[in-house]
Amino acid sequence: MASLNVAIYGASGYTGTELVRLLALHPDVRITALSAESNAGRPMAEVFPQLSTLDLPTLVKMDDIDLSGIDVLFCALPHGTTQTALKAALDTKPSLKVVDLSADFRLADPAEYAKWYGHEHLAPDLQTEAVYGLTEIHRDKVRGARLVANPGCHTSCGLLALIPPVAAGLVDTDTIVIDNKTGMSGAGRSAKVGMLFSEVSEGFHAYGVGGHRHTSEFDQELTLAAGRPVAPTFTPHLVPMNRGIYSTIYVSGDARAIHTALADRYAAEPFVTVLPFGQVPESRHVRGSNFTRIGVVADRRTGRAIILSTLDNLVKGASGQAVQNMNAVLGLDETTGLRQLALFP
Amino acid sequence: MASLNVAIYGASGYTGTELVRLLALHPDVRITALSAESNAGRPMAEVFPQLSTLDLPTLVKMDDIDLSGIDVLFCALPHGTTQTALKAALDTKPSLKVVDLSADFRLADPAEYAKWYGHEHLAPDLQTEAVYGLTEIHRDKVRGARLVANPGCHTSCGLLALIPPVAAGLVDTDTIVIDNKTGMSGAGRSAKVGMLFSEVSEGFHAYGVGGHRHTSEFDQELTLAAGRPVAPTFTPHLVPMNRGIYSTIYVSGDARAIHTALADRYAAEPFVTVLPFGQVPESRHVRGSNFTRIGVVADRRTGRAIILSTLDNLVKGASGQAVQNMNAVLGLDETTGLRQLALFP
Amino acid sequence: MASLNVAIYGASGYTGTELVRLLALHPDVRITALSAESNAGRPMAEVFPQLSTLDLPTLVKMDDIDLSGIDVLFCALPHGTTQTALKAALDTKPSLKVVDLSADFRLADPAEYAKWYGHEHLAPDLQTEAVYGLTEIHRDKVRGARLVANPGCHTSCGLLALIPPVAAGLVDTDTIVIDNKTGMSGAGRSAKVGMLFSEVSEGFHAYGVGGHRHTSEFDQELTLAAGRPVAPTFTPHLVPMNRGIYSTIYVSGDARAIHTALADRYAAEPFVTVLPFGQVPESRHVRGSNFTRIGVVADRRTGRAIILSTLDNLVKGASGQAVQNMNAVLGLDETTGLRQLALFP
Amino acid sequence: MASLNVAIYGASGYTGTELVRLLALHPDVRITALSAESNAGRPMAEVFPQLSTLDLPTLVKMDDIDLSGIDVLFCALPHGTTQTALKAALDTKPSLKVVDLSADFRLADPAEYAKWYGHEHLAPDLQTEAVYGLTEIHRDKVRGARLVANPGCHTSCGLLALIPPVAAGLVDTDTIVIDNKTGMSGAGRSAKVGMLFSEVSEGFHAYGVGGHRHTSEFDQELTLAAGRPVAPTFTPHLVPMNRGIYSTIYVSGDARAIHTALADRYAAEPFVTVLPFGQVPESRHVRGSNFTRIGVVADRRTGRAIILSTLDNLVKGASGQAVQNMNAVLGLDETTGLRQLALFP
Repeated sequence: MASLNVAIYGASGYTGTELVRLLALHPDVRITALSAESNAGRPMAEVFPQLSTLDLPTLVKMDDIDLSGIDVLFCALPHGTTQTALKAALDTKPSLKVVDLSADFRLADPAEYAKWYGHEHLAPDLQTEAVYGLTEIHRDKVRGARLVANPGCHTSCGLLALIPPVAAGLVDTDTIVIDNKTGMSGAGRSAKVGMLFSEVSEGFHAYGVGGHRHTSEFDQELTLAAGRPVAPTFTPHLVPMNRGIYSTIYVSGDARAIHTALADRYAAEPFVTVLPFGQVPESRHVRGSNFTRIGVVADRRTGRAIILSTLDNLVKGASGQAVQNMNAVLGLDETTGLRQLALFP
Repeated sequence: MASLNVAIYGASGYTGTELVRLLALHPDVRITALSAESNAGRPMAEVFPQLSTLDLPTLVKMDDIDLSGIDVLFCALPHGTTQTALKAALDTKPSLKVVDLSADFRLADPAEYAKWYGHEHLAPDLQTEAVYGLTEIHRDKVRGARLVANPGCHTSCGLLALIPPVAAGLVDTDTIVIDNKTGMSGAGRSAKVGMLFSEVSEGFHAYGVGGHRHTSEFDQELTLAAGRPVAPTFTPHLVPMNRGIYSTIYVSGDARAIHTALADRYAAEPFVTVLPFGQVPESRHVRGSNFTRIGVVADRRTGRAIILSTLDNLVKGASGQAVQNMNAVLGLDETTGLRQLALFP
Repeated sequence: MASLNVAIYGASGYTGTELVRLLALHPDVRITALSAESNAGRPMAEVFPQLSTLDLPTLVKMDDIDLSGIDVLFCALPHGTTQTALKAALDTKPSLKVVDLSADFRLADPAEYAKWYGHEHLAPDLQTEAVYGLTEIHRDKVRGARLVANPGCHTSCGLLALIPPVAAGLVDTDTIVIDNKTGMSGAGRSAKVGMLFSEVSEGFHAYGVGGHRHTSEFDQELTLAAGRPVAPTFTPHLVPMNRGIYSTIYVSGDARAIHTALADRYAAEPFVTVLPFGQVPESRHVRGSNFTRIGVVADRRTGRAIILSTLDNLVKGASGQAVQNMNAVLGLDETTGLRQLALFP
Repeated sequence: MASLNVAIYGASGYTGTELVRLLALHPDVRITALSAESNAGRPMAEVFPQLSTLDLPTLVKMDDIDLSGIDVLFCALPHGTTQTALKAALDTKPSLKVVDLSADFRLADPAEYAKWYGHEHLAPDLQTEAVYGLTEIHRDKVRGARLVANPGCHTSCGLLALIPPVAAGLVDTDTIVIDNKTGMSGAGRSAKVGMLFSEVSEGFHAYGVGGHRHTSEFDQELTLAAGRPVAPTFTPHLVPMNRGIYSTIYVSGDARAIHTALADRYAAEPFVTVLPFGQVPESRHVRGSNFTRIGVVADRRTGRAIILSTLDNLVKGASGQAVQNMNAVLGLDETTGLRQLALFP
C-alpha cells in the first residue's frame, strides 16, 4: 500500500525519468507531483513514451506544486536553480525530506564551493545541514537527515572503491590517479552538438582534463577518509554507450591488503560486490541496476595496485542511490524498489 | 512466498539468463534447477556475472535434473535437441507444465514442419498437443495447456499487429509485406564471425531474404486468423543494437478501420499499447520490458496503411512472454513478475 | 596540378566537411573558399579538427566570397536559403558551375515544389534549368549542365535500384513499396534532442511515415522512367549508425528479369555493383566510399521480387555524387578523387 | 606506374584487408599475391565484399606463393606461425623486404621474448636483425632494414607520446601510468563469444590488467629512450567502437616542457599532430587515417602532466604504419598512398 507521497522537481531529464522508473515499482510510494519548466502542461508520457502504461500526474511548473501533502521531494534540477528552489521548499514545509541530485549541496565547505563553482552559495544554512549521501559510507548521517546531497556519478564510482583502503591507511594518498570513463547519459538531455549520435559514436576522448568539478568531491571525501589533505588526479572520458561509469584507479599500496579491506568493508552490503582478487568488473554487468562491482589487481611492480570499479551512472550513480537514500532516511529496507537486476545484453 | 519450483533447460544462452532476470523478481517462483551442457558444473554467476547477487543452483547437465520436484519447465534449448528432451521430460513427469522457447513445437502441421525444417518431427504427439503461445491471441488455449510453444520474436511482433485487422477482414491478405528489423541478441550467444562487434556495428543488412523460417509461423497464424490461406512477404534485417524488434507492415486496407480494430482488441491488455492514430512507436520505449507498442499510419495513397509494431525480442519476444504464458497456464495474474518498465536511455 | 578553383557554401555541416575530405585528394581541384554563417571567422580545422593537416581557407560569410575567381561552387546550405543564394551567385557570375546538395532544385515542376515545400519557388528560372544529378541515369544532361541538383540520399539509393526495371516495364508500378533505413549523419549537425546519442543508440524507429519529402523525388523520377504516373509507398527509418542508406524494395515482377536489367544497365558503371542473383548487399561494404551495391532476391511467391540497395549517404548519397557530378560537368573522368574504398570494419 | 610486386601473408584478417585498402591507392604497388590458409581458393572479394571492385589475386595457401617475383612481403599472420614462415621466406629469397605486423619480432632481447611469450624464439637470427618499426622514432634504422617489426597498436599510440619527453629526461620514469582504450577491431576477426556485438556494445571494461604482452614493448622502447630501466604501469580497456586507440598517460614532469618537447620533435612529421597546449585529442578525428594526434594538459597539482594520444589501431597502429615503413625501406615519400583523411562522422 503506497503511503508516501513523492514529488520530483525536474522530472523531464534522464535522472527524472529514471526516478519514475524505479519508484513505479516501490511498494511504499505514490508519485504525486512532477515538475518541469518548459514542458509544464504536458503529460509525462508525452515526454517519455516508455512511461505511458503508468498513471502519472501531468507535468507542472515547480511553483505550482503544493508541497503540503508531499512527504519526500527528489530534486533533479540543473545546477544554479537548485539552491533557491530547495530553500523555498524547506521554508514552506520544514518537515519535508529532500534528496537532491544536483551538485549544489555536495560540498560542505563554502570556500570550496565558491572556488569550484565561481560564486557564493545561495543557501549556506542548507549547505551546512546537507549530508553527503554516499549511502554505504555515510549511512548513519543519512538516516537522520532532512536534506541529502546525492553524490556525483563519477565520484560514487571512485569513492566506493577508494574510501575503505584510504581510511585504512593502505594507500599513498599523494599519488592517486583516477581514470574514469562514462556513458553519454551522464551528460543529460539538453541539445548540444557535441552530444549528437554522429559526434559521439565510433569515437572516444577525455574531457574536463585537469579540472573537472567532481574533483572537488573526491578531495572532500578522500580528505575526510584519510584524515589529511588528499588531492587525486582525476580524468573523465566519454564512452560511446548510454549507461555506465568505469573507474580505473592507480595507487601505491599492497594489492592484497587493499582487496581484503574492500571485501571486508562491503561483505554485508546488498549493492556492492567485491570480486575475487585479480578479477576485473565490466560495466555491462550493472547496467540498469543499483549494483556496484569492484575488483583489485596487482600491478607487476611490487607495491602498486589497480582498483577497478563500475556502476550505472543513472542508477547507483544518480536515481537509484537517491531512492536508496530515501529508504535510509525513512528507515525502510534500503533495497526496497531497487532489486531489479542488470539488463544484459 | 515462492511456492513453484521452476527448472530451465539451456540456461546459459541469452533467453536463459533473461528468464532468470525476470523470474528472480517473480514472487511465486523458486529457481530450482538450471541446465547447460558444455557449461555444466559451473556456477551460473560465472557464466553471467550480473547474476552474482542471486542464490542460484549450479548449472548441471539436463539429464541430471530430477524433475519429480519441478512444477514448471522452461526449455531454451537449441533447435534439434528440444523434441527428444521434452518428450523425455513429459514421459518422466506427465503433470509437468512446459513452456518451450524453441521453434520446435510452433508449427501444428507435421507437413509444414517437415517442409521448413527438413526432417520429420520427432515428437508428433506433442506437436499436436502444443499450444501456440501468443498469449493475447490464444489465451484461452494457453490457460489449459501442458505444453506451450512460445512464438518467435519476429512473429510475435508482426502477428500482434496483424491478427486483429486480418481476423476482421480489413486487410487484403494477398499483398501483405512485413519488413522486420531486429537487434543482435536474437541471434544468440554462439561464436560466429558474422556476429562479432566489428562485423555488425556501423552497418545494416537484410538476411534470410525470401525464406526465413519464421515465415512459416506467419503463414500458420495469419491463415488461421483469416480463415483462408495467407502467405505474406517477410524480410528480416539486422540492426546494430542489442535488443528490439521493429515491424513495418504494408497492407491494402483502410488505415482508420485498422487502427480502430487494434485499439479495440487491445484496450484491456496490460502489455499491448496501441498509439493514437498516426503516431509511430520506437523500439527504445520497450527495451527490457514486456510491452508491445503498435502504431497505424495512413499512406498518402488511399486504401493503403502502414502498421508499425515493436517489442523487446528477449522479453515479449521470448522470455517475458514465456513467463506471461506460465502465469496464464497456472492461473496467476499475467503481469506477475513482468512489471519492469523499459530502460531508457 | 590543381587548376580548378572550388568554393563551398555551407562548409560547416557534414556534407561540407565530406566535400573537403574528398576534394583534398582530387588532383585537379584547389579549395579556394569556404563559407559558414555562424562559424564565419573560424579556421575550418577548429570546426573539424580532422582537417587540421590541410591548408584550408578560413571560414567566411557567404557574401564575402569573391566568386570571380571561382570555377565550381558546391552549395551545401540548408533548405530555404539556397534559392536566393544560388540565384545571386549565378547572376554575379553566369559562367559558374554549380552543384547544389540541397533539395531546392530537385523538383522540376513548380506545382510539385509548392505542394511539398509549402511555398512558391524563389528562383523559378533556375528550377527549370537545373538537372537532376543522378549521374548514372542523367549523365547526358549533367554533362552540359550549369546547375546540377544533387539527389537526396534516400532517393539516390532507391532510384538506382528501381529505374532500370521500371524503365524496362518489368515492374508493376502501382504497388511499389520502398522501405528505407538510414544512419544518423543524414539528419545533419544541428543540435536537436532527438539526435542525441542517448536518444538514438540502442533503438530503431520509422519517421516521416506516409509523407517524407523525398517521396516527391521518387514520384518525379519513377514517373519519368515509366512514362506514366508512379506514386510508390516510401517509409524511412533511423538506424543507430553514422553512415549508410539501405533500401528494401518490394515489387511485383519477375526477379530474374529485374536482375538482368540491373546487371546489364550497370555493367560498365564504376560506382554501381550488381551482386550475383540472390545475394544481399550490406551497408558496411560501402561505408566511406562512392559505391552503390544492389542485390535482387526472388520472393517465395511467384512474381514477387525484393530489390536491395545500399550506399553511403554522405558519399554517393551526397558529397561523393556531387564530386562525381562536377567531374561529369567538366568532362573529367568521373572517378577522379573518388577511388577510396570502403572503410571496414 | 605500379612497379613493385607485393604479397600479403594472412590477408583474410582485418589488418590484411586494411593493407589492401591502402595499397590499392598506392601508385607504386601491384598486389601480386594474397595468402590465407582456411580461406585458400576463395576470391578475396568473397571474404571481403567491399573489395569487389578491385582486380585482386585469389587467396592461396602461403606455401603456394612464388616469392621469386615479389619485392615486398607484408606478413599479417597470427603469433606462432610467423617466425617459421618468415625464416622460410627470407631463406628462399634473401633480397625480399619484409614488414611483419605480428608481435614476433618486436622484442630484440631473446630472454624478454621467452619471458613474455613462454617459449624460445624460433628464428633468433632474424630477431636480432629485425628493426622496431616505429617510423618516426627509428626511421634511420628502418631505411636500411630488410625485416621491419611493425609495432603494436597500443604501443604505437603510447610510445609516440612518451618517447620524446622520456628521451629528454623530462619525466620521472618510475611512476609512468599508461591507461589505454581500444576499439574492437584490434582483437581480430576470430569467432569468440567475448567479441560478439551483444557482449561488447553498451559496455566497457579493462582486460589484461597487470600483464598485457604489449607491456614488454613499452619496457624495451622506454628503456632505450631513457637510457635506464623503465617499467610503466599499462592497462588496456575495450571501447564499444570499431577503430581507435586512446592513451591517457599520467606522468610526473613539467607539462609545458613536455609539450614543447613533443611539438618540437614532431614539427616536421606529416603524420603526427601535436595540439596546442591544453587541448585534448579525440579518436574520431583519426579514424581511417594514418594520423596520430597528441595533447598535453597540466594537472592541477604542480609537477604532474597528462599526455593524451590517439591513432587508428588498424592504420597508424598496424597496416598504415606498415605501408609507411615500406615507403621508408624503399626510399619512397613516406606519405605515398597514405594521404586519406579521417572519416568523420
